[in-house]
Order: sequence, then structure tokens, then C-alpha cells
Amino acid sequence: MHKKVNQVDVKQDQTLKELIDNLDETAFNARRLARACKIYEKMVKIEGCVKFFSLAGAMVPAGMQKIIHDMLDLGFIDVLITTGANLTHDIAETLGFPHIQGDTEQRDEDLFNKKISRIYDVYMPTKVYESMEEFIKTLSFDPSISVKDFLWFLGNELPDHPHSILQVCSKKKIPIYCPAFTDCGLAMQLSFAFPETNLNQFQDLKDMINMAWDAKVAGSCIVGGGVPKNYLLQAMQFSPNSLSYAIQITMDRPESGGLSGASLSEAISWGKISESAEYSTVIADATIVLPLLLSYLKTTC
Amino acid sequence: MHKKVNQVDVKQDQTLKELIDNLDETAFNARRLARACKIYEKMVKIEGCVKFFSLAGAMVPAGMQKIIHDMLDLGFIDVLITTGANLTHDIAETLGFPHIQGDTEQRDEDLFNKKISRIYDVYMPTKVYESMEEFIKTLSFDPSISVKDFLWFLGNELPDHPHSILQVCSKKKIPIYCPAFTDCGLAMQLSFAFPETNLNQFQDLKDMINMAWDAKVAGSCIVGGGVPKNYLLQAMQFSPNSLSYAIQITMDRPESGGLSGASLSEAISWGKISESAEYSTVIADATIVLPLLLSYLKTTC
Amino acid sequence: MHKKVNQVDVKQDQTLKELIDNLDETAFNARRLARACKIYEKMVKIEGCVKFFSLAGAMVPAGMQKIIHDMLDLGFIDVLITTGANLTHDIAETLGFPHIQGDTEQRDEDLFNKKISRIYDVYMPTKVYESMEEFIKTLSFDPSISVKDFLWFLGNELPDHPHSILQVCSKKKIPIYCPAFTDCGLAMQLSFAFPETNLNQFQDLKDMINMAWDAKVAGSCIVGGGVPKNYLLQAMQFSPNSLSYAIQITMDRPESGGLSGASLSEAISWGKISESAEYSTVIADATIVLPLLLSYLKTTC
Amino acid sequence: MHKKVNQVDVKQDQTLKELIDNLDETAFNARRLARACKIYEKMVKIEGCVKFFSLAGAMVPAGMQKIIHDMLDLGFIDVLITTGANLTHDIAETLGFPHIQGDTEQRDEDLFNKKISRIYDVYMPTKVYESMEEFIKTLSFDPSISVKDFLWFLGNELPDHPHSILQVCSKKKIPIYCPAFTDCGLAMQLSFAFPETNLNQFQDLKDMINMAWDAKVAGSCIVGGGVPKNYLLQAMQFSPNSLSYAIQITMDRPESGGLSGASLSEAISWGKISESAEYSTVIADATIVLPLLLSYLKTTC
Repeated sequence: MHKKVNQVDVKQDQTLKELIDNLDETAFNARRLARACKIYEKMVKIEGCVKFFSLAGAMVPAGMQKIIHDMLDLGFIDVLITTGANLTHDIAETLGFPHIQGDTEQRDEDLFNKKISRIYDVYMPTKVYESMEEFIKTLSFDPSISVKDFLWFLGNELPDHPHSILQVCSKKKIPIYCPAFTDCGLAMQLSFAFPETNLNQFQDLKDMINMAWDAKVAGSCIVGGGVPKNYLLQAMQFSPNSLSYAIQITMDRPESGGLSGASLSEAISWGKISESAEYSTVIADATIVLPLLLSYLKTTC
Repeated sequence: MHKKVNQVDVKQDQTLKELIDNLDETAFNARRLARACKIYEKMVKIEGCVKFFSLAGAMVPAGMQKIIHDMLDLGFIDVLITTGANLTHDIAETLGFPHIQGDTEQRDEDLFNKKISRIYDVYMPTKVYESMEEFIKTLSFDPSISVKDFLWFLGNELPDHPHSILQVCSKKKIPIYCPAFTDCGLAMQLSFAFPETNLNQFQDLKDMINMAWDAKVAGSCIVGGGVPKNYLLQAMQFSPNSLSYAIQITMDRPESGGLSGASLSEAISWGKISESAEYSTVIADATIVLPLLLSYLKTTC
Repeated sequence: MHKKVNQVDVKQDQTLKELIDNLDETAFNARRLARACKIYEKMVKIEGCVKFFSLAGAMVPAGMQKIIHDMLDLGFIDVLITTGANLTHDIAETLGFPHIQGDTEQRDEDLFNKKISRIYDVYMPTKVYESMEEFIKTLSFDPSISVKDFLWFLGNELPDHPHSILQVCSKKKIPIYCPAFTDCGLAMQLSFAFPETNLNQFQDLKDMINMAWDAKVAGSCIVGGGVPKNYLLQAMQFSPNSLSYAIQITMDRPESGGLSGASLSEAISWGKISESAEYSTVIADATIVLPLLLSYLKTTC
Repeated sequence: MHKKVNQVDVKQDQTLKELIDNLDETAFNARRLARACKIYEKMVKIEGCVKFFSLAGAMVPAGMQKIIHDMLDLGFIDVLITTGANLTHDIAETLGFPHIQGDTEQRDEDLFNKKISRIYDVYMPTKVYESMEEFIKTLSFDPSISVKDFLWFLGNELPDHPHSILQVCSKKKIPIYCPAFTDCGLAMQLSFAFPETNLNQFQDLKDMINMAWDAKVAGSCIVGGGVPKNYLLQAMQFSPNSLSYAIQITMDRPESGGLSGASLSEAISWGKISESAEYSTVIADATIVLPLLLSYLKTTC
């Protein structure tokens, strides 16, 4: 019944797909990674499977913006749930302000004095915030729409950019949820520039629940934990069809009891993931896994 | 200049305070824990220091509700920022539904069939949700107030309970923010029972920024990461007086770049923590650290 | 059958024992810590239980030397398995060279130039090595005895010290194993000073297996992972009575498959831990847990 | 001076080498991984660089045996330091007993009763040990040689196998050190079959120190921590030329002070790594990184 572990054979001209196939016959996180790739492949290939994608962590500053963009553009993501930080940094990149490769050994006091904000080993000059502010001030919008509608509007207002996440969501009308929207620089700037802003996050909640409710087959890719993960899973809890496929990529662990590190199995007890679901958690940095995952999907799907 | 490491001397009738004093002369996380206790002690003792407290993680299910309650009640917390999950579980406990000690070895499929939701090694019967729903339906409130005002209202409506977090915040008018409010069972039930609900989270944002702006001296205790941590720190970024004291208790680490595991030093580069601040990160499970911390504060403050 | 989670009640004049009793009624690592304390208490109280203690990590530099000493002195440890590093640092302290509280923000290049070796946030001046060398050179011993016998000899040669680990093992004839003995500064210095040194580690192996074989009831406390953990467990595998009690204190996790982070449950499959054993893993820094554990044991045993 | 973060562009027919080049322009662990690949590439290409490789963790059971074999065979490893466990499992595979893909959800009590030993999600039938024992009993060797010499002898005695680590070391006379040799099943079986066994580990220590001493240029790849890492680094400490290149792949972290998670920078303070060294730590599971690393090296070297 059980298969043997095959010793990985790395060949010189091997494609990444072949390597991942090899890893599927191993153990530990290599095997979990291979399983995650294969589960995502199924999610893409199964007719009508709605692919929910939750994205936490500073993925745009770390150079993962285009990967998320491409996954949206290629139809590998049907619903995106993310943090305000990723949106704020997406706007920065889209407005022409790239992030900078820094290091972790500079004194933070010196960076502060040089007006550089640090995100682990990435730098962002604080002047980016000023330019964002100029852009925000030019906007004209109904201050009581939902966050999703505001983000679609915003994607439309931004200058053309080859791999803006907001823009591709806007163009393709891909629902994008940001449940903790007031927890980001973008929301603060909106609030300063337009004090009457009161985006309707309860409308987003209802939309999201409907998306989950309507999905005949549902799959998910959970990158990092936090609010995006919980928002995705809570919507599935009350849906008639819980998740049939689920992968998660995280460095968090279950033992301290937080939702971020909770196992996917735990979500079965809540009815968020189906008893018969296929699932795999990869304990690894998403900056390593996402490029491998997209490369695998581009070859197989 | 540098002090020597003293070998810890554990005596039989030692108070916890004496033990913590011992740990201050050691290294690794023991020393960080002792430093955190002493920094919090300063925050309490310094006249006019506003103590911001961010709380993520499933702390109420894990038995930390009364500790948070007592810290609020004793004036050790001036502003609370937390997750919807902690509020939802606070309501459950307050309505008389305790959490259950479970284990991690039961099959989640079986728990699902027994209508038990698992939070690592804690169980919650799903019928709790039904009772909460009954309570929610009885409420009558203005659907456009801020989340903080709604939570104060809610604390007032709940039956008397000796250690309800919501109730003590309500009674003592301690500001309580929940920036990702739509990301919890409570918000979902509100949305089902009162479809017109549209609590004004932008009002909360403005309030929170004002709290940070007005604090002449500011200190923080950050338990877990996520949105509560970021919301606290982003408010400090634009305040004239950034944090002078900061402790954080977390199992997250900086290397994968997420805000949850980011070092406190990193926050100095952003201007969220002052260059001259005293700070300490304890890499430890909050369920171990919070009881020790409160015990230390009860003795010294 | 299942008990409810009790919300921890931290009282002002509470003893640590009372606090630990409280934590036993909670969850996550707080509960695991309480269970570990209670299992160790049983190990001490059960007549004839042989208490194996494996110790990895830089516990002596971090100020845990006296705790280990006291546990040996009080009969809470019957067999010690540790790393050469802990022994080398024990000798340094015993010869009068304390470790120094440092920090992690100094440039390591500068420390190198100041002849200071860093162990996370602990400093050790390299001149300590020179003084150790002087001491080593004075020794006169049979170069083919077992490591345990050499360590007992060494404990006897060291100047009197109130909390030397080597000394208490020597005085009380507590077996002390160091399976990777050639992996430490002490062994390197021996090898330089006495090129004919060839301590018989296979004799240690046979002794250790006999210790495990003869134990009618066996318990273990595993601090950190590495060779000490494995050496302890491999000896139990071929013993007629595998471990009836086991606790481990570590920050390592199972998912990457190494023995250090392996669950205690896994050891049941190998026959190293009994099917009916009581066991608890505490995911926490040992510098926090060991002081609490000894304080608990001093009160209860 | 600082470069911008480039958003990763994953193309369909991209080689792994191209992908790694992309990651070098990003952040977090993706960038560390790319840097590690490029540093290893230099180690291979620089004339006369001695490449020390320390290997902890259950890498053979997890399917990494052939990768280590190939790295030895291709001259990417000049000196191997590893654990007895990896050698024991190498013998098992070489004798024709593959490891089995298992899972972590079976009850360990049941596995024990089925005579299956579990290594996270890998199974090994205990009967493998019996077959190993048969093989061990047939050996005839000088019981006082060094461990390295014994392992070379053993590699020669094993049946031909396409990717045995012991065999390739033996054939190519690649020094292989196992400093905690008595801490493994192989040593226990030797000790049972040949009670007079007393391999000379101090000879290994002297050999290893000489290898480090003689290396004009030294580089290292550290996989996992533990004794192999420390043994490698301690030998470099007293060498005239400390490490010029160093990479490490681990899930361990520095904060709890153990050597396994210690930063490479820390080793600079000890003089184990040169002040001017190029180094990179990848916080990731080695089962994911090793296949990528070898693929990169096969393309570039």
C-alpha cells in the first residue's frame, strides 16, 4: 500500500516539473511541496473549481508582485484576499517606486535618519508615501462603496503597469477583498485626504460569503496566515460546499494555538475544509515556494 | 561595562518577582522575559504613559481571558487592540459557555461529526454559536456607529461576568479597537441578523490615530502579531511621540519578512518606535509569559 | 470526560506552584509546561525511577549551570547526557571565568578583534581558553579510560566551586555521558596537550545501554535535541523497559524531520517510549522553563 | 549603491538556473537561497578551495541520499561530516532496504505493534535492523582504527549500489567524519557483535584539524546543525585560514542560543569564519533546498 521513498535524481537538463515529480516520492517538506503543486494543478484543471487565494506577508516588497499578477491574469486565482500592506506596496510599485534590496545589519536609527523604512532586508524610502499621497488626493469616488469596489476603481485610476495586482483585478473584475483595510497606509492616507471615507466592509463580507456559498467546488491557496487566511476559512464554514482542495504555505506552526499556524486538518473540525479534501501544508518561505509553484503550473496547466 | 552572567539560584520560597530578577542577569529568552517585565513595570509607573496593548492569538480559548481582564481592570492597559476571534470567544465565555480542554490526536473528521470545533488542543462545541446567535438577535443598536462604540454597547448588554474583557472595557470606557472586525463569527452573525449593519471602522481609525497623537509618553505590549500589532504601530508612525517603551511576546520570527515576526528594532526605522526607546522581544508562547508578567506586575506595581 | 479550560487567576502572593497548577487547566504550551512539571514530580516521587536527563544547548553560558547542579545534587537527575560545549563552559565557570552579558547588535568583526567570542547574547573572552589550557596541561590520567571516568576524574581535579556540574557528578558518582566528546574545546585541548589521548567512548556506550537495561522504571527530561537526546533514546530502544515518563523542552519542531524536533509520540513507534507512558513536550526556551521547573520541584518534592 | 528589488518573472521554459538568477534580485529567503547557490558555485570554481560539508537531519530517509552521493562524486564535497543516523540509513538503503512513505496521522502505538519505526512521515520496518546485523556480523576489521578508516572499510564491504554515500567516500577516498559515532544504530550493533570495538575518534579529531589547517582556501556548506556543524566550525577556529565561504541551510533560529541555529556572523567573532567571508543562511527545509542547489551546480559548474 505504502510507496517507497525514491532517492531524488537531479539531472542536468531537468525541468522544474520533473524535479517536483521527483520530490513527490520523498518526504518532509519536499513531498508537501510536490503535493501542493499537484493539488493546485487539480484546482486549475477541474471545471468550475473556484480558487480562493489568501495572501499575507510582505510579498510585493519581496518581489512576488508579478507572480501574483500572473496567477490572476492566467486564471489561477478567482478570488483574492489580501492585506492592506500588499495593496499599499502594489500602488508604490505601480506608481514607479521600486523597493530596494537592503540588509539587516544597518542600524535602524541610521535608516530612520536617512528616511528609509525597513521591511526585513528590503528598504523603502519614506518619500514614496508622499508620492502616494499626491496620487490619492486626485481621486474622486463615492466614500461609501465597498472596499472591493473601491479597489477596482483604484486599479482603474492607476497608471498602466505590466504587473500591478490592483490593475489586473480591476481589468478582469476579479473580486479582491481586504478585510483589515483600515490597517494600512493606503487607508490612513484616504482617511486624511477624504475624512468622510467610510467604505462598506460589511458589504464585502456579504459578497465574500456569497462567493463561498455559490462555489460548487472550492479550492484554496493560503499564503501566510493572519486575517486573509481566517476570512477565507470563515466564509467556507457556512457554505454548503466546504473546501475540496487546500494548500497553505507558511512558516507558522500550530503549537502556540494561533490561526496563522493552524493545521489544515483543524479546519476540517470546523467544517471549513471537507472531510474528503486533498490538502497540503508547506512549511517554507513563500518567496521560495511561489516561484516554484507558478513555474510548475505554467508547465502543467 | 558589561555585566557577568549570574547563574540562576532557584530557592524554595522564592517569589516569582525574585525569580524574574534572577533571570535579568542571564541570557537568551530568560533575559528578554525579565527585561520585558521591567519595561512594563516602568510603563505602569511613569506618570501619563499611555499603554497600548495589542492582542492576537486565541488567548481567550487558552485561558488568558481573566489575565487580560485584570490588566484592564488594574489600569495596566489603556488602549486594547485585538482580533474578532478573541471578542467572539469572550462573548462565549461571558454567556456561560466555557472552552474545553481537548487534545490534538483526535481525528478532525470525528470532531466535525460530533459538532466540536478545534483550536489546537481546545474544543468548542458548535452549539455555542447558536446561543450567541440568540443573544445577538436581541440587540438593538445604531448600525453605523464605530466598532469601538458597538463593543462598548455590547459589553453593557452582556450578562454580568467576573472577567469579561468586553464588559470591563465598557464599564471603564477603555478604548477597544478591532480593525479586522468583519473577520470574525460575531461580525458574521451581526451581518446575518441585521443586514443593514455597517459599523464605521474609519471612525475607529481616526480615534486610534488621535489616541497615538495625544500620547505624551507611549508604551506598548504586543502579544502575537497580525493586524493588532500593525494597527498599533501604524498609528504611532505619524504621531509626534513614537513609542518610548515596547515589548512583544511572540513565536514568530523575522526571517520570512512578515510584520508579525518583525523585530522591534525594525519599527525604529519607520519612526514607530523611538530611537531611544527601551524594548524587548520575548520569543515564547504568550500562555506562558502572560501569567508570569501579570504576577510580576501585581507584585511591583 | 473532558474538562473545561479555567481562566487563569493570577493572585498577588501566589507561589509558583499555585500558578503552575492554574496553568494545568489551560491550553497550548502553558498546559504542556504544567504537565511537564507534574510528570517530573512523579519521576522524582516514584520509588526506583531512574531519571535520565539530556542537555543540549548553551545552558551554562546562559546561566543555567546552578540549576543543573542543584538538580543533580538533589537527586532529580540520575544520569546526565550532555554536550562537550556545556562541559567546556562548566570548566570555564569553575575555573573562575564567568560569561558576560553581551548583545546581538555589535559587529562580530569588532568582537573578533577584541578577542571576544559570542554565543547569541553572551560573550566569552578568548583568554578563557588559554587559562583552561594551563589547567588541562597539569592533568595526569590514563588516556584510555572512558569519557565518563575521565569526567569524574576531571571533576575531582577542578578547584572547589559551589555549582560545578562536573564536580557534583564526580562527588556523587552520577554517571555523565558525553557521546560527542571529540566535538568540543576541551577535547581539542586534551588532544593538543596529550596526543596519545584515546578515551574509550564504546565503554561509555556499553555503560549507558546497561543503565537503560537495568532501569526497572525509567523517566527522562530532554532539554534541547541533538546527540544527547538521541543517545538517551537509542539506549531505551533495546531496553526491556522503555521510558514510562518523558518530558522534552525545545524550540525545535517535527516538520523538517530531524530528531531534535521529533515528537515524543514518534519515539513510541521505535519502542523507546512505552505505549502507556505519560509525556509532554514544551515548545519553549529552556532558559525560561528550567527555572520554573526547578522551583516547582523544590516545592513539591 | 543599493539595487532595486526586481519582481520575479517566471517563464514557462525557464531553467532552474534562470529562476535562481531571478531570485537573487529579490528578498527574504529567496534571495538567501540564490546567494547560497552562487557562493557554492564560487567554492566549486575557485582553484584549491576545500569544500567542507556538514550534514545533520534524516536526509537519507527523506530521499536525499543520491544528491549527497552525486555531490561527492562530482567533486562538490571534499570533506563530509555527518551523523551516525545518516550512515545507518545509508547502509539500510545500500543493503536493499528502502524507506517507506508514511504519514504522521497513524497512531504510533499501532506502528510499534506493526514493527514500523517512524521518522516524521517516513517509515522503516524494524526488520531492517536485523538484516543490518547479519551484515555487520560478517565484518572483520581492526577494532582500534579511526572512524573514518572504518567507514572507508565499510564502504568497501557493502554490495555495489549506485548511490551509496559510504561507497563513494570509500572509492574516492573522500574523508568522512562522524564525531558522534557511538550515537547510532550502527555503533550499537558493532558494539554488540564485536565487544572489543574501540574506534579511535581522537585520531579523527586530529585528522580533521589537519584538514582545516592545511586548507589554503576553505568553504563550507552546513546542512542542519548539531554536532556536524560544530565539528566543522571548531576545526576552522584554530586554522590559519578560516572559512572564506559559508552557506548554511536550516530551520533552526538563533534566539534560543543553541549552536544549531547560530548565525554565520556569530562564527566570525570566534574566528571560524573570516571577516571578509561571503556567507548566506537559508532558513528552509533542506529537502527543498538541496535538490535546487544541486540542479543549479550541475548547470553552472
